[in-house]
Amino acid sequence: MTRQELFSNIQKKKSFLCVGLDSDVTLIPEHLFDEEDPIFEFNKAIIDATADLCVAYKPNLAFYESLGSTGWDALDRTVSYLRDHYPDQFIIADAKRGDIGNTSALYARSFFSSLDFDAVTVAPYMGEDSVTPFLGYEGKWVILLALTSNKGAADFQFKKDAETQTALFEQVLRSSQNWGNTENMMYVVGATQARMLADVRSIAPEHFLLVPGVGAQGGSLQEVAEYGFNEHCGLLVNSSRQIIYASSGLDFAKAARKEAEKLQTEMKSLLKQRQLL
Amino acid sequence: MTRQELFSNIQKKKSFLCVGLDSDVTLIPEHLFDEEDPIFEFNKAIIDATADLCVAYKPNLAFYESLGSTGWDALDRTVSYLRDHYPDQFIIADAKRGDIGNTSALYARSFFSSLDFDAVTVAPYMGEDSVTPFLGYEGKWVILLALTSNKGAADFQFKKDAETQTALFEQVLRSSQNWGNTENMMYVVGATQARMLADVRSIAPEHFLLVPGVGAQGGSLQEVAEYGFNEHCGLLVNSSRQIIYASSGLDFAKAARKEAEKLQTEMKSLLKQRQLL
Repeated sequence: MTRQELFSNIQKKKSFLCVGLDSDVTLIPEHLFDEEDPIFEFNKAIIDATADLCVAYKPNLAFYESLGSTGWDALDRTVSYLRDHYPDQFIIADAKRGDIGNTSALYARSFFSSLDFDAVTVAPYMGEDSVTPFLGYEGKWVILLALTSNKGAADFQFKKDAETQTALFEQVLRSSQNWGNTENMMYVVGATQARMLADVRSIAPEHFLLVPGVGAQGGSLQEVAEYGFNEHCGLLVNSSRQIIYASSGLDFAKAARKEAEKLQTEMKSLLKQRQLL
Repeated sequence: MTRQELFSNIQKKKSFLCVGLDSDVTLIPEHLFDEEDPIFEFNKAIIDATADLCVAYKPNLAFYESLGSTGWDALDRTVSYLRDHYPDQFIIADAKRGDIGNTSALYARSFFSSLDFDAVTVAPYMGEDSVTPFLGYEGKWVILLALTSNKGAADFQFKKDAETQTALFEQVLRSSQNWGNTENMMYVVGATQARMLADVRSIAPEHFLLVPGVGAQGGSLQEVAEYGFNEHCGLLVNSSRQIIYASSGLDFAKAARKEAEKLQTEMKSLLKQRQLL
């Protein structure tokens, strides 16, 4: 998917919502265990209930890996279901991979060829050759960790370089712009630090940002929009648990839709305010 | 496994060799494709041919994930085979995971409960709460990326902090010693920078180090021992392709043994020189 296509989808849906499929066997409704593949059935119901309200889905790989090969099959079926029924959805593998070149190349093949994701989250610690193998696929994206939304973000990401006096996350933003461009690279920027989005925008004005921390992880949508919007919207805001675990009863999909609708309504209003619709 | 048990195994085997199971469907011998699970049969043959010469095996997760659920099953069978037939082997999931707390907790459960690995490699970019969930398992280990062996290591790992004038990999070594200890944490230190091992040892004298870069990735075993040994040996040196792809014919396991034997012979001599046997 190109940046323009993603922006068109945002305008069409009046939404920059990404629904996080953190699908946990210990949290999904009990009645789904009558099905052969409960995790896939859960995802399918959530997707059918929310697809007109969002532009992206983000399965978190840990939830699928924790089930071994069964989980991997559920993931595979989920991506195929999205591709077949909702071809305009942007599908993100939240995998946070990153390894030496030939190993990253294999991860890229897994997520982009075998599974047909649109994007994969990548950790920057190992530098350029751990990231570039993901950039060689036409229309596919790297979403590089820059500033994360967790407490431990402060341990290293804010450390200032002696030479340039810039924080590590700023160095990641700057260096990586020599590896990819606005058509194949986005950044993870946590919404718990919404004001930091202004700093991020001063370094990466044109890139899309994936913002994880709205909802259960805290963070205000209005602040995120205020500091994060650019002329292509430039934001994908994720919400996982708040949407997918809105109810654990038979009405879970309906309840998920209701939560997604709340966010989409707020997003529509923010997009209008900024004259992006 | 405790540090003392690992050291006892090193003394018993006269080896600190870790065999990397980077088992690639495009590189394993053709005749194995007559078997139902070629990757597992490959691993089994390599393990049977080398287990008396090494103390650890390290499957690289990318190779298994690239095959989807089939690969995940091969991984599961490999770990079970090691546990059942070679209980003294230290089994490392080379996964380079790391995410927010609850997600890291799920990865930990996958690798330590579902799959019964002894250790998992973890990326430090997201800080303390991305690492600590892996530390709550008795006898299990985190192997934290400190200084990697790839070219991109220079992009961020050597950046000096303005306040302490120490490189990022040194900050990772220091900070993480407040999260774990010498009984549950090791570090990845690339052998292409063998002299840097002296710097690492000045910060982490007691920890075990996993050294990936010997063999195909370059690096001299003698230098690694010179700068890296401590009184518990303190080193696991990995070799992958040089051993497992020594031959692509019917004799692949025998050829793998021969390569492992070369390294074990050199290791035995280095251990003796340092009076560790």
